[in-house]
Amino acid sequence: MAPKTGLWFIGARGSVATTATVGALALTAGLTRRTGCVTDLPEVAVARPPGVADLLIGGHDVAGDSLPKRAEALADGGVFGIELARAVHDGLTRVDARIRHGVASTDPHEPSEGTQREAVEQISRDLAGFRAAHALDRVIVVDVATTEPPVAMTPELSDLDALERALAAGESPLPASSLYAYAAFRAGCPVVAFTPSPGPRLPALAQLAERVGLPWAGSDGKTGETLVKSALAPMFATRALRVRSWASYNLLGGGDGRALADPVTVTSKTETKGKGLTELLGEPVDGPLHIDYVEDLGDWKTAWDMVSFEGFLGTKMSMQFTWQGCDSALAAPLVLDLARLVARAHQAGESGPLGALGFFFKDPAGDSGHDLAGQWRALTEWCGRLGGDR
Amino acid sequence: MAPKTGLWFIGARGSVATTATVGALALTAGLTRRTGCVTDLPEVAVARPPGVADLLIGGHDVAGDSLPKRAEALADGGVFGIELARAVHDGLTRVDARIRHGVASTDPHEPSEGTQREAVEQISRDLAGFRAAHALDRVIVVDVATTEPPVAMTPELSDLDALERALAAGESPLPASSLYAYAAFRAGCPVVAFTPSPGPRLPALAQLAERVGLPWAGSDGKTGETLVKSALAPMFATRALRVRSWASYNLLGGGDGRALADPVTVTSKTETKGKGLTELLGEPVDGPLHIDYVEDLGDWKTAWDMVSFEGFLGTKMSMQFTWQGCDSALAAPLVLDLARLVARAHQAGESGPLGALGFFFKDPAGDSGHDLAGQWRALTEWCGRLGGDR
Amino acid sequence: MAPKTGLWFIGARGSVATTATVGALALTAGLTRRTGCVTDLPEVAVARPPGVADLLIGGHDVAGDSLPKRAEALADGGVFGIELARAVHDGLTRVDARIRHGVASTDPHEPSEGTQREAVEQISRDLAGFRAAHALDRVIVVDVATTEPPVAMTPELSDLDALERALAAGESPLPASSLYAYAAFRAGCPVVAFTPSPGPRLPALAQLAERVGLPWAGSDGKTGETLVKSALAPMFATRALRVRSWASYNLLGGGDGRALADPVTVTSKTETKGKGLTELLGEPVDGPLHIDYVEDLGDWKTAWDMVSFEGFLGTKMSMQFTWQGCDSALAAPLVLDLARLVARAHQAGESGPLGALGFFFKDPAGDSGHDLAGQWRALTEWCGRLGGDR
Amino acid sequence: MAPKTGLWFIGARGSVATTATVGALALTAGLTRRTGCVTDLPEVAVARPPGVADLLIGGHDVAGDSLPKRAEALADGGVFGIELARAVHDGLTRVDARIRHGVASTDPHEPSEGTQREAVEQISRDLAGFRAAHALDRVIVVDVATTEPPVAMTPELSDLDALERALAAGESPLPASSLYAYAAFRAGCPVVAFTPSPGPRLPALAQLAERVGLPWAGSDGKTGETLVKSALAPMFATRALRVRSWASYNLLGGGDGRALADPVTVTSKTETKGKGLTELLGEPVDGPLHIDYVEDLGDWKTAWDMVSFEGFLGTKMSMQFTWQGCDSALAAPLVLDLARLVARAHQAGESGPLGALGFFFKDPAGDSGHDLAGQWRALTEWCGRLGGDR
Repeated sequence: MAPKTGLWFIGARGSVATTATVGALALTAGLTRRTGCVTDLPEVAVARPPGVADLLIGGHDVAGDSLPKRAEALADGGVFGIELARAVHDGLTRVDARIRHGVASTDPHEPSEGTQREAVEQISRDLAGFRAAHALDRVIVVDVATTEPPVAMTPELSDLDALERALAAGESPLPASSLYAYAAFRAGCPVVAFTPSPGPRLPALAQLAERVGLPWAGSDGKTGETLVKSALAPMFATRALRVRSWASYNLLGGGDGRALADPVTVTSKTETKGKGLTELLGEPVDGPLHIDYVEDLGDWKTAWDMVSFEGFLGTKMSMQFTWQGCDSALAAPLVLDLARLVARAHQAGESGPLGALGFFFKDPAGDSGHDLAGQWRALTEWCGRLGGDR
Repeated sequence: MAPKTGLWFIGARGSVATTATVGALALTAGLTRRTGCVTDLPEVAVARPPGVADLLIGGHDVAGDSLPKRAEALADGGVFGIELARAVHDGLTRVDARIRHGVASTDPHEPSEGTQREAVEQISRDLAGFRAAHALDRVIVVDVATTEPPVAMTPELSDLDALERALAAGESPLPASSLYAYAAFRAGCPVVAFTPSPGPRLPALAQLAERVGLPWAGSDGKTGETLVKSALAPMFATRALRVRSWASYNLLGGGDGRALADPVTVTSKTETKGKGLTELLGEPVDGPLHIDYVEDLGDWKTAWDMVSFEGFLGTKMSMQFTWQGCDSALAAPLVLDLARLVARAHQAGESGPLGALGFFFKDPAGDSGHDLAGQWRALTEWCGRLGGDR
Repeated sequence: MAPKTGLWFIGARGSVATTATVGALALTAGLTRRTGCVTDLPEVAVARPPGVADLLIGGHDVAGDSLPKRAEALADGGVFGIELARAVHDGLTRVDARIRHGVASTDPHEPSEGTQREAVEQISRDLAGFRAAHALDRVIVVDVATTEPPVAMTPELSDLDALERALAAGESPLPASSLYAYAAFRAGCPVVAFTPSPGPRLPALAQLAERVGLPWAGSDGKTGETLVKSALAPMFATRALRVRSWASYNLLGGGDGRALADPVTVTSKTETKGKGLTELLGEPVDGPLHIDYVEDLGDWKTAWDMVSFEGFLGTKMSMQFTWQGCDSALAAPLVLDLARLVARAHQAGESGPLGALGFFFKDPAGDSGHDLAGQWRALTEWCGRLGGDR
Repeated sequence: MAPKTGLWFIGARGSVATTATVGALALTAGLTRRTGCVTDLPEVAVARPPGVADLLIGGHDVAGDSLPKRAEALADGGVFGIELARAVHDGLTRVDARIRHGVASTDPHEPSEGTQREAVEQISRDLAGFRAAHALDRVIVVDVATTEPPVAMTPELSDLDALERALAAGESPLPASSLYAYAAFRAGCPVVAFTPSPGPRLPALAQLAERVGLPWAGSDGKTGETLVKSALAPMFATRALRVRSWASYNLLGGGDGRALADPVTVTSKTETKGKGLTELLGEPVDGPLHIDYVEDLGDWKTAWDMVSFEGFLGTKMSMQFTWQGCDSALAAPLVLDLARLVARAHQAGESGPLGALGFFFKDPAGDSGHDLAGQWRALTEWCGRLGGDR
């Protein structure tokens, strides 16, 4: 039986999308284990989402290297074995043929051509064409493109009607991530915002999702240091230990590291990273948060956190941790999880921000806290409900 | 109004009991903050347990140094400030006057005098005398004495009737921790097992608690490395990351460290420390677990854990953490929490092992998993029920 | 016998000077051990420098709190025991009476009064008065004041004659640290620059030292992370291991931390910290270097370094270290060492930058590399020569 | 020009020998850089040792897998790239053809056949045959076989004449590593002991080396945690900081890890690892030292050290480091270095233990301390002398 769910990447030749594509092909061919696939844990699988083999992958990108070449480069960097990259070479070539040239770059330094209204039409055509050509039930658009710098709020970004008027007038008010989200919603596609870029989170976009009755999830995948924080901070809170400072240092190379070396762009990330701690601990906590680009680390990132806390009778103690992970290998299975779960939500008729998916995000949209265990409970309860709903 | 709840320490002049006593006096006098006091968090306070000021402290010990002297030594070691130790000097002297010489040492190398039946009678008299002299509603017996080596199971330890026969025959079948628990139950006192010693966990003792309708809690306070493990391991499990090995190294000085330097005694601790991980991760995990005595560390302990795990497509990653804490400052508030919550359970008529208190223990008795967030939920739900029950 | 060597602190009530003064008094009274005193190791003592008991301490400061009060605050922060602070209370009061109000602040935000020529005369009078009043053989001026921001080079700072003309004309061309160094040299006093402030390192000042035939040493005491770097980097170099990146993160509180929280001032420090690595490794190395102010750490600093290196056949490996030290306790004995050794050099008739003292500095003046073992050899050889020279 | 120096491995198909062989072939073919090759640093190259391309490799082993197969397994484990293993496949096959079946296993659980006298004759014949067949100037025997358990000293191991009598009488008094060293010396070959096994270090063997006028070097390659210790400990010593405890934890997998999982064998290693610290610090230091086998780590090892030290005025501070290295990639270039430098020493007519090579060893034989910088100086001075001696 042919796949019924489309997975459309914005940034389809980036490290995360390439790794997710390699992984989806490898899982479908039975070449690897389901390690890292949250959706295949029994508590989540109960929701009966589409399987990895049910996903047909396509996408937009503005970069030139083909997927098989990108996969070889990632294998060189140790993200996965070169044998695996070769075993799925043909599948990668087929996915690569389904990648359309992006009409808008998320890199603000690259100017776009034409009006945003034209770009929307082009993107929507690409999405509708993909759905029709493969007789897909639905297409989930997942943004894994380079992180954008933060945007200043304007009336067009805050209000859907103002946005529509501006687009009709030939203006270009949207950041690229939100342009893609706009076009996706207009084409009837649910959206996943896996980066801290604005995407569907702008009020005008959220209104659009509500108006067209589509679900979306975001934002900024929780893959490493923030994941650990959201598991550890509740320990301090429920033990009534007072965190005095929490210093967070992140070293990373790769494409994402290079984008984040930009002192403006990086604030998109440090903001989503910082948000949760205050909520988790119940009060603001002192301490620096740095993200540093170190080219030699490639796709690997190392984070060191130092937590200084106070216990009974004011005794000062500390905890530190070092996290050494492969960014793409951590992110890729979550991207597949999200596509599958958002597809299931769409099938079940849900709309608006999916708070139950907060488990996957640094800056969860919808009704979700930052506490990992609480997010897990919310996710599994939601999956249980979806599973009961036939 | 005079305190109504007795807190009776086995090991009343040890580091944990001394710190707890200093803390209780300091809190009652308003000299310190409630940092570390779980029972004063709103979700737990809802159960309406007695306050710290409602606790009257006494206990058994076999050691000679007075509480004020012990407090000064701990202040020297940085557990709390010397000013605080001096400010509660008079209170410590009063508690010290309520400490009775223990009839049995938990140190297996120190022989006891007389039969265990005589010892039971002496301990029960001490407990009943304490309760009567101060018109207390109830007395909670909390074992914070030196860890004992593991015991070999015998019919007397497995079955209450066999135990009663042996005691009647003048035999001494019980390890000291269980002797104290036996006497406490016979005197109508609930018991808290804060060490890995057998105490109330022997089947014969658990039967006794059931027969006399008394609650008890245990065992082995979860204060440091195991606490962190129980917060972190669920993160790996719910993210479907496969933990390949988890190495745990513990350095500690102090009295507890010295006892654990004994290669037999230490197995009591390494066993309770190791138990949770398999359950938390769903499969046995390779990796050494050492506890090493380093005299110079005094009451401070440092733990280093190295977690090697596998993610998507078999990519190997790792996480390590270092925990630098003060053992007594971590344990002391939990001891007060447990006394207050067990007193509340006794008042509410609960009996048997209190599974809802698993949050506090490495090796929780009763119906409780090891997952910290799950234990917190169980605790707060129980507290909510107790709070509704007037 | 009365002390014969004056030790005059610029910043005499700062954390480092206070700790050094407490230490000098405690050592003289036999209340503490010589831990941390390099000059008392046999290989250095061979130079026959004055003993700690031979030092008479005075100084300048602009701050108000008395030395005994400052010492109590440091004891509160755990730098040394409160008992020790009390035991030397009277000695501290006597030193405090010898502290003169500084005519110039090293804080650039505090304007000075009068011309720099007047300030020089005042400082020189203070120094000469101190020497005369106590019949001292010599006075060593040691700058431990707050770090200044970097200065832009000007003709007056580059050339002694231009500087003299500017001062004569009533101008104020010098940063405060160099003003003190200028006055010290004019008063015949050797100088130690223990901070990264310009002090005696400006070309005009170095010319002055040469002209008046006085020795000086600097700059920026090597007390923690950089010390470790200078011990570790040669290991990589002599093993032909290629360091790919070296990330350095520093967390510190205290007064120094606050000054370094200023984004301009901190560059004084990051520059001296960064200088050595390139020389030690033979090539520039990538990697961030941050100094972050975390108030709660007080006088304690934590540094975390992550070294990524490549071995045989291109294999990537890594090393990380965490250094948790007390800034003042690390710096204070070095300050006493430097006063004693510079006094000995002065006695022996040496002049100009003392390269043999590079062992003590992050940014060594004179002919010295950064390699710790090489610096130790240079130091001990110099001491051997001084010892033979009677 | 054909190679003139033979390099004969005991344990020729082990991880270290295989990596060294792959590396020698890759360097000769210009496929990799000289990273990790100490002998190619200018200060050492001045001695004019043979080049890597001048080495012809052969050896003994008792294991079955061929070198090309072993190389592929190591590439799988990330020690080097699979492309490199394939590029030197033919060279590996040629070396493999020069590997003779070992007549004695260093594994004490595998019984040997025949008398040790016969084994000596067989080994000597193999060595002489290798030298003759390839017209080599000399053959250096390098022991990289599995670590043996410690031996109890006997008269035969202490005295050469007693040993000769025992061998003549058909007895088998020698541990395998020493049997190979004996045969090597008898065949006129210098020896390098790269493991902690007794090898040439037994007094009887050292006497033999002296009698036949051959040089040897050992023992136990200093590749990781001990290397770092020998760079760091002098820092504490020369700064007069008192180390209070130094805890050392080592996690490793691979073949070496498995051998060291044996509680007796591991003492060979913990002893050589522990020896240096006391000397480096000038006094014995408390603290545990563990080596734990964790299968999943493969050829990678992680060490964590925690140094607790005391500074000025008794202030307690600490430093910890984590070393994550690839055992074979660290050891292999040193093995090539040692073969080249011992060949040069042999050519220059040196005999007995080569103290100048202490830089490479955990337990240096001959006149050498443990201080890494001092060992580097001794090495480079020796190289300078050899270079001047034409």
